[in-house]
Amino acid sequence: MDGTRDIEALIDLMARLPGLGPRSARRAVLHLIKKRDSRLLPLAQLMDEVGRTIRTCLNCANLSTGDICPICLSEKRANGQICVVEDVADLWAMERAQVFQGRYHVLGGTLSPLDDIGPDDLHIPKLRDRIAAENVREVILALNATVDGQTTAHYVAQELAPTGVGLSGLAQGMPVGGELDYLDDGTLRAALSSRKPY
Amino acid sequence: MDGTRDIEALIDLMARLPGLGPRSARRAVLHLIKKRDSRLLPLAQLMDEVGRTIRTCLNCANLSTGDICPICLSEKRANGQICVVEDVADLWAMERAQVFQGRYHVLGGTLSPLDDIGPDDLHIPKLRDRIAAENVREVILALNATVDGQTTAHYVAQELAPTGVGLSGLAQGMPVGGELDYLDDGTLRAALSSRKPY
Repeated sequence: MDGTRDIEALIDLMARLPGLGPRSARRAVLHLIKKRDSRLLPLAQLMDEVGRTIRTCLNCANLSTGDICPICLSEKRANGQICVVEDVADLWAMERAQVFQGRYHVLGGTLSPLDDIGPDDLHIPKLRDRIAAENVREVILALNATVDGQTTAHYVAQELAPTGVGLSGLAQGMPVGGELDYLDDGTLRAALSSRKPY
Repeated sequence: MDGTRDIEALIDLMARLPGLGPRSARRAVLHLIKKRDSRLLPLAQLMDEVGRTIRTCLNCANLSTGDICPICLSEKRANGQICVVEDVADLWAMERAQVFQGRYHVLGGTLSPLDDIGPDDLHIPKLRDRIAAENVREVILALNATVDGQTTAHYVAQELAPTGVGLSGLAQGMPVGGELDYLDDGTLRAALSSRKPY
């Protein structure tokens, strides 16, 4: 690879992406070089564009091209519900499923003493402000069903209790299409204890 | 993802890379956006740089920043041996292993009637020219041990026969560290028929 230091540097950067290693980074870079005009140059331009224009919504911490993201700006989504998620990826998952018509609040992580992430590192004060400012009736804590996620949900619920806002969390139970035989014990226990009358 | 069309377009382009799908592309793009200054913008700049500067060596079809690649330019590598490989990735593999001190010739594919790739689509005439021009003693056909690879090696060998140059192919047999029990029948047969006296 003499004399092609840029290629090596490119492979090195690509190999640090989650889901890629050195071998797949090499394959991806060769693929890009072979399709220079249709893939490599457009990708370079888009990355530059995104890097220069995308920032964090000052209201909900979603990604946005403006100070305030389109979801926060949309009057249609001011239905008094805020869905609290850990990360932008979770917001995207909710939007893909098209199951929620309210607004979001991205915490930016979960409480994690081991990683030195405390309440001050999450966007919780802003959430408290929004409950009054946006006339919010219900806050849905849509955090991951992990120990960190549930600990954080518990903490956020405690913090918001004085505001008197309605609080809820996502249901735990069998995934749609799930088979009893393949469920882990924790899920089975949750599904049983939250059983619903017919 | 309203209003962030560039992000969607970026995810879409990333998802077309070999080894990435929609989910891993989303993860990779979020990772890049979070590390904008250390990852996203440098990657954009490198891709642009590579896209504008990298071309194909006029002699051996390796990737290069100049008309002729550093391996073809290096006098140290003019040892009378040319290693014929299918693709630049194979050249990189040989260079990583540091097992070959001669020059290369990248065919740019294998003969494949089904994909409409015939002899004219490979860099074979140039290889014939090089044998005389570079005083080549031996051509090593380092093609993949697949049907297409071996068919192509056979064809190239026939084409070069009139030049009188020495021709060889990579040995087939047990991979280093391989265990008999796990070898496929074809490899076992090749390893047995090419057995070497102690």
